[in-house]
Amino acid sequence: MTAPDPLQETLHRIRSGERRALAKAITLLESSRADHQQQAQDLLEALLPGTNQALRIGITGVPGVGKSTFIEAFGLSLIEQGHRVAVLAVDPSSPVTGGSILGDKTRMNELSQHPDAFIRPSPSAGILGGVGRRTRETMLLCEAAGYDVIFVETVGVGQSETLVASMTDCFLVLMLPNAGDELQGIKKGILELADLLVVNKADGDQMALARHAQQTYRQALRLMASGHAEWTTPVLTISALKHQGLAELWESIREFEASRKASGAWEQNRRDQQRRWFWSLVEEALLNRFQTHPAVRQEIPEVERLIHEDALLPARAAQRLLKVFL
Amino acid sequence: MTAPDPLQETLHRIRSGERRALAKAITLLESSRADHQQQAQDLLEALLPGTNQALRIGITGVPGVGKSTFIEAFGLSLIEQGHRVAVLAVDPSSPVTGGSILGDKTRMNELSQHPDAFIRPSPSAGILGGVGRRTRETMLLCEAAGYDVIFVETVGVGQSETLVASMTDCFLVLMLPNAGDELQGIKKGILELADLLVVNKADGDQMALARHAQQTYRQALRLMASGHAEWTTPVLTISALKHQGLAELWESIREFEASRKASGAWEQNRRDQQRRWFWSLVEEALLNRFQTHPAVRQEIPEVERLIHEDALLPARAAQRLLKVFL
Repeated sequence: MTAPDPLQETLHRIRSGERRALAKAITLLESSRADHQQQAQDLLEALLPGTNQALRIGITGVPGVGKSTFIEAFGLSLIEQGHRVAVLAVDPSSPVTGGSILGDKTRMNELSQHPDAFIRPSPSAGILGGVGRRTRETMLLCEAAGYDVIFVETVGVGQSETLVASMTDCFLVLMLPNAGDELQGIKKGILELADLLVVNKADGDQMALARHAQQTYRQALRLMASGHAEWTTPVLTISALKHQGLAELWESIREFEASRKASGAWEQNRRDQQRRWFWSLVEEALLNRFQTHPAVRQEIPEVERLIHEDALLPARAAQRLLKVFL
Repeated sequence: MTAPDPLQETLHRIRSGERRALAKAITLLESSRADHQQQAQDLLEALLPGTNQALRIGITGVPGVGKSTFIEAFGLSLIEQGHRVAVLAVDPSSPVTGGSILGDKTRMNELSQHPDAFIRPSPSAGILGGVGRRTRETMLLCEAAGYDVIFVETVGVGQSETLVASMTDCFLVLMLPNAGDELQGIKKGILELADLLVVNKADGDQMALARHAQQTYRQALRLMASGHAEWTTPVLTISALKHQGLAELWESIREFEASRKASGAWEQNRRDQQRRWFWSLVEEALLNRFQTHPAVRQEIPEVERLIHEDALLPARAAQRLLKVFL
């Protein structure tokens, strides 16, 4: 009798949908220990052929737009239709305070307790690049564990929404009903990233406001160049609270998917995303090697001193250290 | 008789404030030709001791907030006081359309024709990092040419405001008078970057609205952690159109400068900015060397194919190419 191979056992447990095994693997991914990283990469590599099958949906919106209520309601409605839903978060953290905004599981109480849902808060690890990598790899683990719809949520701060758009198939932007006013403050880039625009809180007193917002956004989008020539970003109104408009939204997402798949844009997008992800990892690793190179490390203080004293240009200094490195 | 040294001649012409010599040097900086880059770096290096003396002011605000009107009015008022003003722009370009938003000299008609002002639109060169580098170096050239107040403007899209804040001493955020509504849409990060908040268009019908906005922003800022413990971000109201509040704004900027210089934060900030700039150049150069390395170039197509076929993890692929490179 041979001893059980722990990798194979973990693989099996993840593939058969054991949430604890999945959670443990993600923790391994998020660890900064080199041996944990090694194990996590081995695991991922072994799981790879079973990934990339899920529908990856990015979600953003300002604080207060009702992202959690939406994900809970939408997630549960998808589960009712037989889907298995994973929810991940990318926490951009404030550049000054470093404070965490997302990652509160208790916001989605019912969904988080459902056996067909898996919710994982954002890894707390410092820089956005690192968070992005871990979220991407977590997504693969979730897909291997049989989750076929993955939500990746973020608040629209800094570049986090670009990051989330760069790892998902379909990007939803949630909006408040007070559109006319909000348009002033909204980032042009966000509207351009949106594959679907969703005006939430279209209920009660705010119904008329939401309809008006829908018109305003439609006009705004018409004025803008579309990122995908074959797709006109629809503007939907929903009420996550009252579970209204969710079926229409799902239909819109499936239409988007069908249209993109027919044109080949879906596949092309995934290919581009993978390539860019790969290059960002290369960049990260290169810089790490550079900074830990003994001769470079020795030169750095002197070079930084000269730069500070205006005796050396940063561009020249970079050239000089590069010569030492290579 | 020796032939005149062209570098020395250019130096002399820039230092004596010849605008055409300055403009030519900036064009050299913005060129992608290697020999132009070399010349530009030689020039910058020779000019370095005369730089770093100006007050660098970053300016952002949504489209429609009146940035151009403000810079024109404020710039002219500073020139009246004996300053020499340079205006640079960082154009974040839309990630999808690549379209240019800024850089229209004609927007500041009177200022652009004044002998003590120098306006330069954003370099059109692709990536934000490259634009940032050129803007930083252009700033040094302007300082060598005797401009003692440098405005660097950008629209608040993507990460361009973070970039501008990272190369200036004092960061102004211009706001519209309809604050209550706008606060929903505004990026938390932007308020945190702001050293001064300026509500523009405080005139005529909008006076009351602007005062209300001032109160709202003061409250919002009070709720937020301040980036600089010793400085409470003031909220001013101005009318660029009617030239109102500009003297008070200048006074506020000088107070900020005095307070930061007294605490040593001013100098520390410049030192940190230079260090970060240097590191971003290192990163850029490393990646460039990597991508042009013959053996790496040969491997890339195969590696990208394997990644695409889910036969290789991006992280593993990066490790593999790094081994080839080093």
